[in-house]
Amino acid sequence: MPESPIRKLVPYAEAAANKGVEVLYLNIGQPDISTPESARNAVKEFDADVLAYSHSAGMYELRSGFANYYRSHGMPVSAEDVLITTGGSEAIQFALGSITDPGDELIIPEPFYANYNGFSVQSGVQVVPVPSSIENGFALPPIEEFEKKISQRTKGIMICNPGNPTGYLYSEAELDKLREIVQRHDLYLLADEVYREFTYDGESHKSILQLEGLAEHAIVLDSLSKRYSMCGARIGCIVSRNKELISTALKYGQARLSPPTLAQIASIGALRTPKAYFEEVLGEYQERRNTLVGGLKSIEGVHCPMPKGAFYCVAQLPVEDAEAFAKWLLSEFQWEGKTLMFAPNAGFYSTSGLGKNEVRLAYVLEKEKLQQAVEILRNGLATYNALNG
Amino acid sequence: MPESPIRKLVPYAEAAANKGVEVLYLNIGQPDISTPESARNAVKEFDADVLAYSHSAGMYELRSGFANYYRSHGMPVSAEDVLITTGGSEAIQFALGSITDPGDELIIPEPFYANYNGFSVQSGVQVVPVPSSIENGFALPPIEEFEKKISQRTKGIMICNPGNPTGYLYSEAELDKLREIVQRHDLYLLADEVYREFTYDGESHKSILQLEGLAEHAIVLDSLSKRYSMCGARIGCIVSRNKELISTALKYGQARLSPPTLAQIASIGALRTPKAYFEEVLGEYQERRNTLVGGLKSIEGVHCPMPKGAFYCVAQLPVEDAEAFAKWLLSEFQWEGKTLMFAPNAGFYSTSGLGKNEVRLAYVLEKEKLQQAVEILRNGLATYNALNG
Repeated sequence: MPESPIRKLVPYAEAAANKGVEVLYLNIGQPDISTPESARNAVKEFDADVLAYSHSAGMYELRSGFANYYRSHGMPVSAEDVLITTGGSEAIQFALGSITDPGDELIIPEPFYANYNGFSVQSGVQVVPVPSSIENGFALPPIEEFEKKISQRTKGIMICNPGNPTGYLYSEAELDKLREIVQRHDLYLLADEVYREFTYDGESHKSILQLEGLAEHAIVLDSLSKRYSMCGARIGCIVSRNKELISTALKYGQARLSPPTLAQIASIGALRTPKAYFEEVLGEYQERRNTLVGGLKSIEGVHCPMPKGAFYCVAQLPVEDAEAFAKWLLSEFQWEGKTLMFAPNAGFYSTSGLGKNEVRLAYVLEKEKLQQAVEILRNGLATYNALNG
Repeated sequence: MPESPIRKLVPYAEAAANKGVEVLYLNIGQPDISTPESARNAVKEFDADVLAYSHSAGMYELRSGFANYYRSHGMPVSAEDVLITTGGSEAIQFALGSITDPGDELIIPEPFYANYNGFSVQSGVQVVPVPSSIENGFALPPIEEFEKKISQRTKGIMICNPGNPTGYLYSEAELDKLREIVQRHDLYLLADEVYREFTYDGESHKSILQLEGLAEHAIVLDSLSKRYSMCGARIGCIVSRNKELISTALKYGQARLSPPTLAQIASIGALRTPKAYFEEVLGEYQERRNTLVGGLKSIEGVHCPMPKGAFYCVAQLPVEDAEAFAKWLLSEFQWEGKTLMFAPNAGFYSTSGLGKNEVRLAYVLEKEKLQQAVEILRNGLATYNALNG
């Protein structure tokens, strides 16, 4: 089981905190935005005597709440196309388990959300990476690069859109290329779309469920964790019009009995959140992005493409080994009593050696803290490179 | 992914309900007992603005609440020995993933909780069954039968105590035999002890964590689902004094980020439940057991050992194929407008052909309904055998 790059430095951060240094946690996508009141109230009002199992596919009211949400975003799905899971994590596990046998392959543009690796190991699936590059902002690699990697064992192509860790938002033209290739080779197209609501500069997200002719191919992996700042609920879902896929995934669902009931109640409430919530939240994230990325660009030697979605950015630092630098920041450095934790980006690549000088930062904290983070990084880099130069 | 025997007949039950027949659900261990108020109130009082991830190992307050509970039951463990999981299901998955590589073997007395099969398939683990028999009430098979099955690939022996589906409670002498064999062959001993509180006739449960010399071997898989009638919370844990095991399991925990937060809050409350709760609940279950098993014994041709624990019994019916009979009961039969659903017990065996005339019944409903279930079965068997005889 590979260790998560998001959490592997936690012991260093704990040691720093124990020394009285304040650590700014930009390593993990845990927003500080309030969970909508509709979600919190739903739980307080829940009044069953017995906290019972739900249906293994989730409560029907929640499945149909999700379907309404998707339809209002132009995705033609019904409650029966939605299978509730314990977080997006379980959606990935069930989907991989349902479409692959051990030894099968899944093509994923890298860098990608590191836990895909862990879940692939659990399913015995071989991840076949197609590298994207910070030079062009992590755009979709040329489609010929995907074609080259397709083998007899390839079961699907998986994307994360908008991307974690890259913040990249795929264009319609890029999605069309993916549509053509999965149709031509009869593959599944899996899309982790948990950040769909977080797009900036007036850009909008297109779901793979909106692509023509992919009803049997498209599998969306979703979660409410980030959308409604309720990471701790652990509610996600698989969405697909492929009935056989949903029915196979349900067998995994039956083995674990049911998704958490209280969290489903909170989620039914969350899906009633008025649209105004997102307008406010989006405005806030866009300002945070501008603060963080603008600050990073002002540091000599740092390169950081402007992300169009999600709430992460990947920055290239003027160091050889970003993980060593991250450990040093936590163990040896402080600036005005503070230091910074981020995720070394090499852990988001499957190809060994790539991304060694890159880091992922999550802009999930308020602007003032992000400004502090930039100063910690600016001063930390100067000191580190003076020491090691 | 094998289908769960507990739920495979659900479509038949739904069809019966759609025809207006009342179905008594004795197929699944979903108690009708109220969840303790301390659990429900804890959730209502929870007042965080952000429903955030917890630590991947679970909230420390909950880990230490579990440790207190175990210590008060004579099991010498600390909070660090407890890893919180999303239900007992995830505890099994993490434990199997942590101690095995694909192709490794796990010896389990059969019949056993059917989902062990599903989780083993997911981990690529080969279940090696050692049959126990209804003739002696499903006692531990002779230890030589275990020895015969041990190979180079054997990683552990797994038991469920008190047993699901059998209700069998292992004696201290039986546990000692298991202790000796796992020490001799350096194997893990895994025990699913989720029904520990449910023992009858003055019998008491002994945990494998109380066995001498097994600190590195013993892994308990636990859950609050049945203990506090909160199946829908989805909170369980792995308990072991083997530090390396807990640390490996934590990597699985990090991949799925965190157990559900609201459910952890409810669980912290549940662990404060006064002892009087169990006295009342135990009294109720013992009466239910007596009602159901007493009733079953009064039906001609039915054999049912008296279980000493959990809330299931296994009965042998005077039919050739209990699954065909179960489908017939749901599709063709009613008694006073009612029919009955149980779990065919063949699905709890790994050896094909065993248990075909056995069924598992859960005594999780009130006595009046259990009496009705007995009458449905008595009349159903008479009609079925008259039609097919």
